[in-house]
Amino acid sequence: MASPGDLTVRSGRVKTARRLATRAFRVKTGEFLAEGPQAVREALDAPGAVIEVFATVDATERYPELAERAESWHVVTDDVVEEIADSVTPQGLVARCHSILTTLADVPQDARLVVVCAEIRDPGNLGAVIRCADAAGAAAVVVAGDSVDPLNPKVVRATAGSLFHLPIAVERDVEAVIAELQRRGCQVLAADGGGETGLFDADLDLTVPTAWMMGNEAHGLPAEWAAAADRVVHVPILGRAESLNLATAAAVCLYASAREQG
Amino acid sequence: MASPGDLTVRSGRVKTARRLATRAFRVKTGEFLAEGPQAVREALDAPGAVIEVFATVDATERYPELAERAESWHVVTDDVVEEIADSVTPQGLVARCHSILTTLADVPQDARLVVVCAEIRDPGNLGAVIRCADAAGAAAVVVAGDSVDPLNPKVVRATAGSLFHLPIAVERDVEAVIAELQRRGCQVLAADGGGETGLFDADLDLTVPTAWMMGNEAHGLPAEWAAAADRVVHVPILGRAESLNLATAAAVCLYASAREQG
Repeated sequence: MASPGDLTVRSGRVKTARRLATRAFRVKTGEFLAEGPQAVREALDAPGAVIEVFATVDATERYPELAERAESWHVVTDDVVEEIADSVTPQGLVARCHSILTTLADVPQDARLVVVCAEIRDPGNLGAVIRCADAAGAAAVVVAGDSVDPLNPKVVRATAGSLFHLPIAVERDVEAVIAELQRRGCQVLAADGGGETGLFDADLDLTVPTAWMMGNEAHGLPAEWAAAADRVVHVPILGRAESLNLATAAAVCLYASAREQG
Repeated sequence: MASPGDLTVRSGRVKTARRLATRAFRVKTGEFLAEGPQAVREALDAPGAVIEVFATVDATERYPELAERAESWHVVTDDVVEEIADSVTPQGLVARCHSILTTLADVPQDARLVVVCAEIRDPGNLGAVIRCADAAGAAAVVVAGDSVDPLNPKVVRATAGSLFHLPIAVERDVEAVIAELQRRGCQVLAADGGGETGLFDADLDLTVPTAWMMGNEAHGLPAEWAAAADRVVHVPILGRAESLNLATAAAVCLYASAREQG
């Protein structure tokens, strides 16, 4: 039976893990945290991602298959997991992981469906879009411009494991991303409520390789990015709603493409 | 120029409004709160809905067109609005409103697209589904079984105004709702990740009048409701995601129907 080891909230190892709550320390170390059984399981499935796992006695007994697969599994008291984790209910488990972020150069050249997140600021929104992209079979997500860090604990949680399922590329320059995807033969469709083209318009061809660009939730897409895209597309509003939220709009667009490409 | 009147956080009128944060008091009075300029504007558009508005000096100056339309507009100090409102940033405005809830009997008999929320517990999810239903042109939303109260301030906020755009019917008995919709000639499609029919299967006819039933976010649909539905339908998962979240699944299903019916 597992019993807590020597680590306390004052241990250097615990303090180091705790610091991964900040973006600056994640960038400096190239590491991040995965919290809860689902995220830890997915992280363990990603070769070489997990550095070490901190787990309560309860969690160690509840998830023996995870404990067996981790190279470094520290049994700790509840307060140590609470100290490290961002979430209120990490269910007794948090893993320190190597960053799984990549760049556009590593996105498959022949990708047929890609999502570009252009300055998405809300962690829940970015996580939900990554989860949708995974569900709809997208080849990769490009997080571009001044977006929230995909390794932010709230983003990791909102992806419900999908963070580990497809390449997440981070790029600063949104216009360079658009140009590179176009060079590869992708049409770039900017999703925006004010777009001229309707998602179900007959002349919109969704059978070809497509990158969907989702803009900032509050301010939409800046004019220069909309102009750089091949088209600006709106999801038709058939009732009296002012708009859809970002994740639901992404889901409708991505599934429209998936269906036509399928 | 407006200046705060006599109401303070200790006034009976303010205390009464404050109590509408609880479901019990909402049910007892048949009233609820709409917070922030968007919700107050939509409430004022709904004939007879608004009883009174509490507004700060700032908000009164910023939204003169709203102040003009309200029969009872109280200019109050910031702490009064903060005391009444559930949200952290009500932007200086909160309205006490008559319930706009209705029952299935008031849903148009010839509705072609209806959403049934069966035991949705999370306010953000219910609000997002109501917003999607409005966007996709649904005729009504039926909130059935042991769901969160649609007049909960967090639900009202998450609907982004859509609460006031289409009939929101509340019914206790989920199976009776299914039977009544079927009697009216609607096919009832239960959305569930484990459903036998895929959303894009050729033999699923989405051109006919349809009620989409969305289940509880954590436990899915109980077997007896799935059995009562005409079909249980899953949104295809094309990547490695375990599932879609409730609101994005609802968006994909509703827009699939809207597109076929359009």
